Amino acid sequence: MQYVHKLKTKCLDLEAGKLVALLHEHDAKQLGILPLDRIEIRNPLTGKAVVTVVDTTQTMVRAGEIGIFRDVSASLDGFKDHCDLDIVEVRVVPQPQSVGFIKKKMDGVKLADAEIKAIVADIAVNKLSEIEATAFVSAVYMRGFDLEETVSMTKALVGNGGRMQLKHGPVLDKHSVGGLNGRATMIIVPIVAAAGYYVPKTSSRSITSAAGTADAMEVLASVNLSKADIKRITEEVGAVITWGGAVDLAPADDKIIKIEHPLSLDPEGQVIASVLAKKASVGAEYVVIDLPIGPEVKIKSKERGEEMAKKFVVVGKAVGMKVEAVLTDGRAPSGPAFGPALEARHVLEILEGKAWNNLAEKSCEMAGTMLELVGKCKDGDGYKLAKEILVSGKALAKMKEIIRAQSGGTGITASKDVPAAKLVERICTDQDGEIATINVRSLINIARIAGAPADKLAGVWLHVSAESKVKKGGCLFEIHAENKEKLGLAVKIAKTSPLIELERSIIEKFE
Amino acid sequence: MQYVHKLKTKCLDLEAGKLVALLHEHDAKQLGILPLDRIEIRNPLTGKAVVTVVDTTQTMVRAGEIGIFRDVSASLDGFKDHCDLDIVEVRVVPQPQSVGFIKKKMDGVKLADAEIKAIVADIAVNKLSEIEATAFVSAVYMRGFDLEETVSMTKALVGNGGRMQLKHGPVLDKHSVGGLNGRATMIIVPIVAAAGYYVPKTSSRSITSAAGTADAMEVLASVNLSKADIKRITEEVGAVITWGGAVDLAPADDKIIKIEHPLSLDPEGQVIASVLAKKASVGAEYVVIDLPIGPEVKIKSKERGEEMAKKFVVVGKAVGMKVEAVLTDGRAPSGPAFGPALEARHVLEILEGKAWNNLAEKSCEMAGTMLELVGKCKDGDGYKLAKEILVSGKALAKMKEIIRAQSGGTGITASKDVPAAKLVERICTDQDGEIATINVRSLINIARIAGAPADKLAGVWLHVSAESKVKKGGCLFEIHAENKEKLGLAVKIAKTSPLIELERSIIEKFE
Repeated sequence: MQYVHKLKTKCLDLEAGKLVALLHEHDAKQLGILPLDRIEIRNPLTGKAVVTVVDTTQTMVRAGEIGIFRDVSASLDGFKDHCDLDIVEVRVVPQPQSVGFIKKKMDGVKLADAEIKAIVADIAVNKLSEIEATAFVSAVYMRGFDLEETVSMTKALVGNGGRMQLKHGPVLDKHSVGGLNGRATMIIVPIVAAAGYYVPKTSSRSITSAAGTADAMEVLASVNLSKADIKRITEEVGAVITWGGAVDLAPADDKIIKIEHPLSLDPEGQVIASVLAKKASVGAEYVVIDLPIGPEVKIKSKERGEEMAKKFVVVGKAVGMKVEAVLTDGRAPSGPAFGPALEARHVLEILEGKAWNNLAEKSCEMAGTMLELVGKCKDGDGYKLAKEILVSGKALAKMKEIIRAQSGGTGITASKDVPAAKLVERICTDQDGEIATINVRSLINIARIAGAPADKLAGVWLHVSAESKVKKGGCLFEIHAENKEKLGLAVKIAKTSPLIELERSIIEKFE
Repeated sequence: MQYVHKLKTKCLDLEAGKLVALLHEHDAKQLGILPLDRIEIRNPLTGKAVVTVVDTTQTMVRAGEIGIFRDVSASLDGFKDHCDLDIVEVRVVPQPQSVGFIKKKMDGVKLADAEIKAIVADIAVNKLSEIEATAFVSAVYMRGFDLEETVSMTKALVGNGGRMQLKHGPVLDKHSVGGLNGRATMIIVPIVAAAGYYVPKTSSRSITSAAGTADAMEVLASVNLSKADIKRITEEVGAVITWGGAVDLAPADDKIIKIEHPLSLDPEGQVIASVLAKKASVGAEYVVIDLPIGPEVKIKSKERGEEMAKKFVVVGKAVGMKVEAVLTDGRAPSGPAFGPALEARHVLEILEGKAWNNLAEKSCEMAGTMLELVGKCKDGDGYKLAKEILVSGKALAKMKEIIRAQSGGTGITASKDVPAAKLVERICTDQDGEIATINVRSLINIARIAGAPADKLAGVWLHVSAESKVKKGGCLFEIHAENKEKLGLAVKIAKTSPLIELERSIIEKFE
């Protein structure tokens, strides 16, 4: 029982990416609503209806018209091609209940399971406006989620995307919260899969680093696998290493992460829910979480890492996963490579037995922890077992299977076949000394200016490590690039910033 | 010193209402940015540049293209008509500093004067994305503003729009925080102006009520006055009563209020800053704030009202205004009218001496307080002086001057000339009794369903007040409407809701 307003549609040939309709201010007034209120638009010919948020204008549509974007016209059926001629019925509808729950969280009240579920479901299908969703994300950041809310959030994010069922188990997975470089994942996954377990690993692309695992893996194979691909290949060869963004594992989560980005928000409860939901949605049963601790990584102190580790375990258990969280040393770079191709090449070198360093060691430790967690060996024996699998060449063989499965037989499976950049410039030191500090964030920045991760071959290759001694004229690192202009910029910045600090071997001479 | 990307513009024939540009995902990757990061777009022909937020797409523009909305192309000069052919230079720019200040407030840190100023300035010119601005509004709601921050916010909002300079003073003003109906303003302003003071009053339109002062005044005169009109008319006849939304008094404030609306946020500090900034920007020196207290108005308790009153006084002083805040009874409706024309007519009846009720009394009290504040009479004598001005007909004469000045001589200046709705339906009682409760919010709702405030003549006219006695068949209120369908809906709802509750005169008989 409500007033219904009739309007002529005017199609706006754009996707708004959200459900929004444009009304002339006059019609908004007639309906008694303000911008950001909601209406239901009904196509009287088909009976189909869609609820949208309203924005008002004095110029883009005339009084009596309603401007609808492609996203909306597609929902109304029969309006796709000739919608300028059609009449729709418009009535005011209340806000979704979830807006009230968001307000509740803003007021500092703990949310119930069903309330979090409603908010997540509405975010997933664009029922909440950007303002409403941002208010939620801000509230979670400022008020925090307690353990129960984090569990609810995790369940809601999973429920929203569905849980993958693999033919037989057990399914193992790992996640690293904010490391710097190296791509341990590309060593760990083939080791664990070679031990006979499923590892359907989805990874992210770089946000602020020189390469994400998905960027590096893409040098060797396709990372645009669908859910069906992930299931099929994992059942076939035991593992995938693919880009999570290509799969709708937890649609609401991707929208929340998009909102968090400009404000660099990462509320702990949300991070835990986000990570574990993605693991749960590929059906993971045993999960190891790597929490690097260091001044340049996300988690700065051991105390904060320990707190987070405990929460990962408890929340994991509540959603049916056995989780082990380990604190690792996040102070030094993991291996010498920064950039997709350089990191991919170095991973293959380690799998081929041509290199051994802290990255290889860490990978064996993480893989060992996973093997202990699933009960493949007793506690304390995991590292040894993982290293055996690596040294034996079984991990390399498994990696080749994974690459071939993800590429349809065309991938690069040997380190020597990874393409190298044509443009390389060496940055050298003008004094003798010992390496005191390596500013990893600055090196990553140089790699990014040189073109990484979009230019796959671009990046930085480090020739020194902490405490190594150098002589005047010795090479500290190489900058690789595909584009001359980008290389020039990177070199200029590299030569003027304190990227690597030396301590003179002899500081003072007493005579 | 930065990588510059060249893109071909594709004009999107829409105003986005914000500074945003669309990049294909491929180009965003090349630039190393994510959605909601910022770029500078430069027209190499004119040298003009504009900073926008980026959104990415796979469909709306092709790789190598940049989609720009009218708002953006207008800033680039020479791109208005043929922008599909032009090449622009694009480079990544950092977030405005103000985003860091917003994050700081989210983290619970008090903001400095310059930080609040930077945020407000960036909101005013659309430099902040909707997500960033929403995070700020949410932070102010959840963390609160202390007195110093409220002062900074008030100054920033004023500074942002500029302060009006009137020929000579003193300039008086008043504001009511969330009353229900009545339009006391339209009685107070002519009384105070008749006493020889400037009252450049800007008012709002209805949000949830049956009419705002601007809606009611619009029945009699134009309320779309520019800043120049406000200055000219106030200097000419002593006062205006106009719509604040037509003037850019505090542009950032309007954007903040738009964001607050869907979540019904009204953080105290923000409300105080918003109200006082608008007063300061018309040059007000003496301001009376009316704080109605009652279960159905914004401020529910006396304690909360007192707290707010004190803050209004302190903040007002800090920005150079003498403020008096008074708590008033917000329990009963102010007079019988609900709806723009009905309220305007009743105001004229009071000015004409044809009606006297709690609305007239309250108006004289408020006007009296203003006259005491400016020193026209001694404390305690204001009400008497205001009532004299009203009864003498001087206030009516002043109101006629104001109406004529705002209408160019064509306004309605007598209550009998206010048009009446053709459709009127009486709602009667089916029993004898005494009025126990009047649900004012429900009556307002009926008035809105009947078409108010968009349909100017629609509304509700109340025939009873609390404790008045009614007989079976007696009329409780009338519903006025312009549209038959809306009237039908309003009557249906009126007949089925408990709008006015009776107490039977004889509850029980003992024999």
